[in-house]
Amino acid sequence: MKKVAIVTEGGSDFSTVKETAAELEKFGIPYEVHVMSAHRTPGLAAEFSKNAAENGFGVIISASEKIAFLACEIASNTILPVIGIPVKSLALDGLDALLSTVQMPRGVPVASVAINGGVNAAILAAQILALSDKELDKKLCEMKEEMAAGVIKKDEKLQEEVKNIFKN
Amino acid sequence: MKKVAIVTEGGSDFSTVKETAAELEKFGIPYEVHVMSAHRTPGLAAEFSKNAAENGFGVIISASEKIAFLACEIASNTILPVIGIPVKSLALDGLDALLSTVQMPRGVPVASVAINGGVNAAILAAQILALSDKELDKKLCEMKEEMAAGVIKKDEKLQEEVKNIFKN
Amino acid sequence: MKKVAIVTEGGSDFSTVKETAAELEKFGIPYEVHVMSAHRTPGLAAEFSKNAAENGFGVIISASEKIAFLACEIASNTILPVIGIPVKSLALDGLDALLSTVQMPRGVPVASVAINGGVNAAILAAQILALSDKELDKKLCEMKEEMAAGVIKKDEKLQEEVKNIFKN
Amino acid sequence: MKKVAIVTEGGSDFSTVKETAAELEKFGIPYEVHVMSAHRTPGLAAEFSKNAAENGFGVIISASEKIAFLACEIASNTILPVIGIPVKSLALDGLDALLSTVQMPRGVPVASVAINGGVNAAILAAQILALSDKELDKKLCEMKEEMAAGVIKKDEKLQEEVKNIFKN
Amino acid sequence: MKKVAIVTEGGSDFSTVKETAAELEKFGIPYEVHVMSAHRTPGLAAEFSKNAAENGFGVIISASEKIAFLACEIASNTILPVIGIPVKSLALDGLDALLSTVQMPRGVPVASVAINGGVNAAILAAQILALSDKELDKKLCEMKEEMAAGVIKKDEKLQEEVKNIFKN
Amino acid sequence: MKKVAIVTEGGSDFSTVKETAAELEKFGIPYEVHVMSAHRTPGLAAEFSKNAAENGFGVIISASEKIAFLACEIASNTILPVIGIPVKSLALDGLDALLSTVQMPRGVPVASVAINGGVNAAILAAQILALSDKELDKKLCEMKEEMAAGVIKKDEKLQEEVKNIFKN
Amino acid sequence: MKKVAIVTEGGSDFSTVKETAAELEKFGIPYEVHVMSAHRTPGLAAEFSKNAAENGFGVIISASEKIAFLACEIASNTILPVIGIPVKSLALDGLDALLSTVQMPRGVPVASVAINGGVNAAILAAQILALSDKELDKKLCEMKEEMAAGVIKKDEKLQEEVKNIFKN
Amino acid sequence: MKKVAIVTEGGSDFSTVKETAAELEKFGIPYEVHVMSAHRTPGLAAEFSKNAAENGFGVIISASEKIAFLACEIASNTILPVIGIPVKSLALDGLDALLSTVQMPRGVPVASVAINGGVNAAILAAQILALSDKELDKKLCEMKEEMAAGVIKKDEKLQEEVKNIFKN
Repeated sequence: MKKVAIVTEGGSDFSTVKETAAELEKFGIPYEVHVMSAHRTPGLAAEFSKNAAENGFGVIISASEKIAFLACEIASNTILPVIGIPVKSLALDGLDALLSTVQMPRGVPVASVAINGGVNAAILAAQILALSDKELDKKLCEMKEEMAAGVIKKDEKLQEEVKNIFKN
Repeated sequence: MKKVAIVTEGGSDFSTVKETAAELEKFGIPYEVHVMSAHRTPGLAAEFSKNAAENGFGVIISASEKIAFLACEIASNTILPVIGIPVKSLALDGLDALLSTVQMPRGVPVASVAINGGVNAAILAAQILALSDKELDKKLCEMKEEMAAGVIKKDEKLQEEVKNIFKN
Repeated sequence: MKKVAIVTEGGSDFSTVKETAAELEKFGIPYEVHVMSAHRTPGLAAEFSKNAAENGFGVIISASEKIAFLACEIASNTILPVIGIPVKSLALDGLDALLSTVQMPRGVPVASVAINGGVNAAILAAQILALSDKELDKKLCEMKEEMAAGVIKKDEKLQEEVKNIFKN
Repeated sequence: MKKVAIVTEGGSDFSTVKETAAELEKFGIPYEVHVMSAHRTPGLAAEFSKNAAENGFGVIISASEKIAFLACEIASNTILPVIGIPVKSLALDGLDALLSTVQMPRGVPVASVAINGGVNAAILAAQILALSDKELDKKLCEMKEEMAAGVIKKDEKLQEEVKNIFKN
Repeated sequence: MKKVAIVTEGGSDFSTVKETAAELEKFGIPYEVHVMSAHRTPGLAAEFSKNAAENGFGVIISASEKIAFLACEIASNTILPVIGIPVKSLALDGLDALLSTVQMPRGVPVASVAINGGVNAAILAAQILALSDKELDKKLCEMKEEMAAGVIKKDEKLQEEVKNIFKN
Repeated sequence: MKKVAIVTEGGSDFSTVKETAAELEKFGIPYEVHVMSAHRTPGLAAEFSKNAAENGFGVIISASEKIAFLACEIASNTILPVIGIPVKSLALDGLDALLSTVQMPRGVPVASVAINGGVNAAILAAQILALSDKELDKKLCEMKEEMAAGVIKKDEKLQEEVKNIFKN
Repeated sequence: MKKVAIVTEGGSDFSTVKETAAELEKFGIPYEVHVMSAHRTPGLAAEFSKNAAENGFGVIISASEKIAFLACEIASNTILPVIGIPVKSLALDGLDALLSTVQMPRGVPVASVAINGGVNAAILAAQILALSDKELDKKLCEMKEEMAAGVIKKDEKLQEEVKNIFKN
Repeated sequence: MKKVAIVTEGGSDFSTVKETAAELEKFGIPYEVHVMSAHRTPGLAAEFSKNAAENGFGVIISASEKIAFLACEIASNTILPVIGIPVKSLALDGLDALLSTVQMPRGVPVASVAINGGVNAAILAAQILALSDKELDKKLCEMKEEMAAGVIKKDEKLQEEVKNIFKN
């Protein structure tokens, strides 16, 4: 199976990236994590991206706080699908990261997920790779079923709770 | 090759959807366009999504103005990658469509592109399909080269223009 | 009397929903609480909504954080009045939930109350049901009087407090 | 049947209010329109609201641009359900009207619909009145069916259009 | 001298109002504090406002969180200058209170100060009353001088601090 | 009577300022208009403000687009009440002007009116001056009555209009 | 004198860039304009930036709409001061461009000017170069004087205008 | 070498300013810190700015919360490059400070860095001064290299961490 690259600038986006890794682990998708900085190690991210397909990667996930320069740099240097995770930082409640991830100019898309959406980034990567991987496809279907089952359990729990609070 | 589905609610998101279709035409990617409304034809979009993989689709692109209910409905009923295009409408300058496309809850990702980003949605779909299609991969590389060449032409033109304005 | 359904996706919207239940208890309005997820249990919320009127419900209250897909799903599948409670989550200070609750497309309204407005959702439901229930109407009038009395008590308290701080 | 009151401050919210009236006409719901200004005719809106139930009204719809003082004034003086329509004006793209309509304090709800959502306000009113009116209930169901049929027609039209553009 | 009325809805705007009172105390301006709720005690605020001039008030200061209905109600019922203090609450970081305080419709101004600007509301009231009160005018000039002196002290302190941190 | 100074930076805030002047004319309040730029003629606005009280001014109204530096400069150099009019310009829909007018730091208030609120700025100035001018007080009361009468006329007109559209 | 580089992605930022060039012409500052795209010609902007100092540039001005990737790319590859001009595009009123220009991560500053602030970018560049160029310093001082004179002319004109409107 | 002036209004912008000082220390750039308030010590900041060039300053850095009046005042009274640091305060998450720093009117630029961007302000000042200082230029290049090295260390650390979490 193709690998997923998770790249981050290494600030408060760290914990988000670990959620992404944990989710990929669940699906058994091979991945690599890298701290790379489009700002501080210019050229390096470009180099990585240009060779990513050859090096066996199928999807690149990039997490950034403030502005998503890293996702841009990567998307400009590869035709692999690039998923961007905007990460909330000190000010503006994540809006700066969100807008700079999603408002990419014509010709160079980045697939943005929700602010701090590390888990969804992994699932989206899985969905992309599952297009040519039956087993991954099956795992995604199972995950959907588990999610549904989880909701039903929560339903029972909430009903119990509310009953206990008000009906006694 | 797998097909791309372009679905829309059929409001001011129409022209955006045509840009998407035009771009897919350039890549020679088979596609279908559908007006579907999660609000007005409930069940229909769900039905379509559940059967999308079987019916030969590989990616679903969904465009909505105001709130991206259609993208949600589709993403909830398929494990295919779903790309959302937020479309600017009367008020709030597209912010409502953007937030409701991108801020999907954990477990059900939508890959958001820029506001009115019909072209990028098509390119992202192409990038996803190219993972298992050498020829599409080649076309994407060519597109990158053409974009670069286009920039260089624009550069010459601007320099000429500025010279004419100020140097005489 | 018709029942009120309180549905929630079961995240940080839990405590909001309990406020709603507590308020309905005060009015003696029968209700049910349900965790349902338009994203994770697709079809279930639609099914619930289609049968809601027959099952004795008169109003459905839906609470969601991030994006109000659940309210949308419900409103698309019933002609009962649907009240949406946007719930503040990690980022964007509730703006995402608010816009996706209120900016519904033409034809499928959701009645939005304030961010985390669990109590007001219950009162609005009571006001709707009171149109054909004299006793509930009376209770709402009494509530208005109690609120007014509460304000007058607060007034006395504040005046006392300020006097103590500055006049000694 | 109970009547619907449509009240407006009489600025750029005029055309919105006519959409509301037109929609109520379709449902055969009796209504009155009033220009009233909480700011300029203080007391008048309060008076109207206090007597609204007695005067045969079941729902009050209030449209305001900038800030929704009129909806507030009405909601404070009646226990009838009040629906607020935020109307976009010169600046801030409707955000001021939206926030001041929806962010009502605890105890006095206003049911907010989308910015310039005159049609949805009427439908919401119809849904509320239909709780005790079988015929109105039936009309709402028919409207849902017509909306669905309309979407299916749009679907055919779009497919035709796209075919004509690209397939020739 | 004319009195200042400080009115509040009695929520989290309490501490702001105490800052206002404390500042008026410094200037020796007579004032009254009142908890009044345009929503919960409709009519009361209107009544108070209509009689405010006769009762010896010259300026009314109104503090509200979420939406500034109280300031609106007051401004609609008096021609005294009304100063509004938007108070930050749970969500939206004070933006809802700010917009609903400042975006008053033509004909009924409210003088908005900064979010949680209780002190500035008092100073503005003092500036208004000082137009016909020589002594208050003098106190305002002294306050300006003290502020300037305070800045100069802070300057010395910062320079000392920075010297200590880096120069040793 | 004390005069009102209307100052502006002379950009797109021009028409707003003329509305202010027109409104002051109605009240018979003496005024002067000045183009002054805190940015481009530094010192001049400060000078003007320091002498404003002595020169017979009672209130200063300042209109700015983008950022309200002029209002700041003035408020820093006088203890006269300063009214700020935020003016909408090319981008950000007036939000930049609004925030920089209203978010003044502690100690130096500016009384902000609505975006482009030239008329309300004049009325607020009139309300301030009316505290010591019986005749102006009377004119403001008459204006309130005329506004109310205007609303009642609009009411009749709207009712006529709606009757003509739908009842025939 | 060192040269200024004006770089742009070649979209709707074109006219902004011409304003910058025109302003530099006034100061007699040598400059080059280049269309470069960090997204479409990756590597090229990096290359240009690395060699900019050697090639005689002292300041780089970069204009972008949507997201300021070009400014980022440049700032990452040079230690010359980089000035960013956010350019307003179709949606979000310039907020996306502004945030992505100004919210640069620690270590790699971009000096942001106002949205569409092409003229100010040129003046800022002139101010930077004037630190080691007496003649440019003098020109900047003259520009300040001319601006002041311009304001005084506008003042006379406005006073004349207002007199003509109202005093006759 | 020319000095850098760091000026602040002395509120919550204090710690930001110390970061700036610390960064300038690293570069060995001479600087002075000053608490100055455009609002509270009017004239003083103007005076300081007019004489700044003569007094050996090359760049002025100004930090403000809420609204950036100080940066404006300075920029209006000097032709030295002025760098503005918007500082986040109680409400609005820094948006008020950001917009009032960056949205300067034509003719008087302020170079805005990120919200709370004290370090970047210092680096930008260093970049400006390095245009005529070889040694500073060298230090900036070294800083770039150290940043890159830091990223590479972080990369190793993250890879180790992730390996430890998931691979055991």
